[in-house]
Amino acid sequence: MMVEQQQAVVLLSGGLDSATVLAIARAEGYECVALSFDYGQRHRVELEAARRVAQAQDVSDHLIVAIDLRAFGGSALTDDIDVPKDRSPEDISQGIPITYVPARNTIFLSFALGCAEARGISDIFIGVNAIDYSGYPDCRSEYIQAFEAMANLATQMGVEGRRIAIHTPLIDLIKAQIIRRGASLGVDYGLTFSCYDPKSPTGAPCGRCDSCRLRAAGFREAGLDDAAAP
Amino acid sequence: MMVEQQQAVVLLSGGLDSATVLAIARAEGYECVALSFDYGQRHRVELEAARRVAQAQDVSDHLIVAIDLRAFGGSALTDDIDVPKDRSPEDISQGIPITYVPARNTIFLSFALGCAEARGISDIFIGVNAIDYSGYPDCRSEYIQAFEAMANLATQMGVEGRRIAIHTPLIDLIKAQIIRRGASLGVDYGLTFSCYDPKSPTGAPCGRCDSCRLRAAGFREAGLDDAAAP
Repeated sequence: MMVEQQQAVVLLSGGLDSATVLAIARAEGYECVALSFDYGQRHRVELEAARRVAQAQDVSDHLIVAIDLRAFGGSALTDDIDVPKDRSPEDISQGIPITYVPARNTIFLSFALGCAEARGISDIFIGVNAIDYSGYPDCRSEYIQAFEAMANLATQMGVEGRRIAIHTPLIDLIKAQIIRRGASLGVDYGLTFSCYDPKSPTGAPCGRCDSCRLRAAGFREAGLDDAAAP
Repeated sequence: MMVEQQQAVVLLSGGLDSATVLAIARAEGYECVALSFDYGQRHRVELEAARRVAQAQDVSDHLIVAIDLRAFGGSALTDDIDVPKDRSPEDISQGIPITYVPARNTIFLSFALGCAEARGISDIFIGVNAIDYSGYPDCRSEYIQAFEAMANLATQMGVEGRRIAIHTPLIDLIKAQIIRRGASLGVDYGLTFSCYDPKSPTGAPCGRCDSCRLRAAGFREAGLDDAAAP
């Protein structure tokens, strides 16, 4: 008898966290639809990384949705504001950083929900992490629970009693734990890209922004080498 | 002393309902930022109507955000599925219609939330209506309440205790009441556009889809003429 494989929509940015989430979802037996966004980032190199990661993990269905967050302004990742450099992990976890994009995870999860509903999929994975990014309101589990409750009221599937679940396997992990978990699942982190502010036209990571520093500290603590280190 | 006018983000489709909502928000004293979506509709004529309505109501700030819902499929409004015709109001309110776009209001409200947060605005208006479209899960007040709860956990404003409110002034009104309310506020419905399936390249309404039929019945019941009737 052929057993139909359960599907999941996985938000894939091309960074370290979402590459790990994709591997976790696959290890849990899901056939994954990867969903990435072309949202007017200053660096398209992220999307290239997402493509590499999806390919390396044998994802047959990788959707890239173009949206334009620049119309709103308000973030260093979409505007022409300088990305902060050389901050300590303690500084990084204090307050809401300038790289915060208004309602970004809500917008991304909403698209994931639309994609899931259109395909009859009830499981969505997202690599939010409340430890390293405690300043982002939309990385906390109480936010995710509220989104899930809303999603079950928003959709035909929810109305019909098929429960939509938002999975956040990284939410309580520190970066070193995420890296160890991904490494144990065979994630090739050399394909991923985390920098907020690549310094070269080819997209080499700067090594000094919050994301590069958290990543470097994570690999150090995990006792592993980062093949994509600057 | 100069009193700063409170701002609101108003979702504006170019249809009858959202034109009325914009007039209500303005009558309540809000300075309005109108937000429309170019989401790969089969008919761009909707966006032209949104521009006319925004201009007629003196909205200085009208954002049009391009997003692509076609990647998901699953709806007659974005796919090449035939729009149902000649259905009675009773048929229209039964079940979830084929013109339902997966998670559409969630995606639209998420963008409104991003726009609101980027500009420090805590009031959002949307023209959902639970009466005529009882089949749409994302037109019910329990859904709106869940979105509002989520929004207050998702954002820096919410975290800082500034309450975000999703206003739905039409939610319990029948179409004739909406039209009477808008007419009393001076809304020029001749500028609006409601058809799901315009039959001519110039965008003349078909007169037979659910939206055209509800609109015609609403004007009849309100005892008013529709300047945009086919």
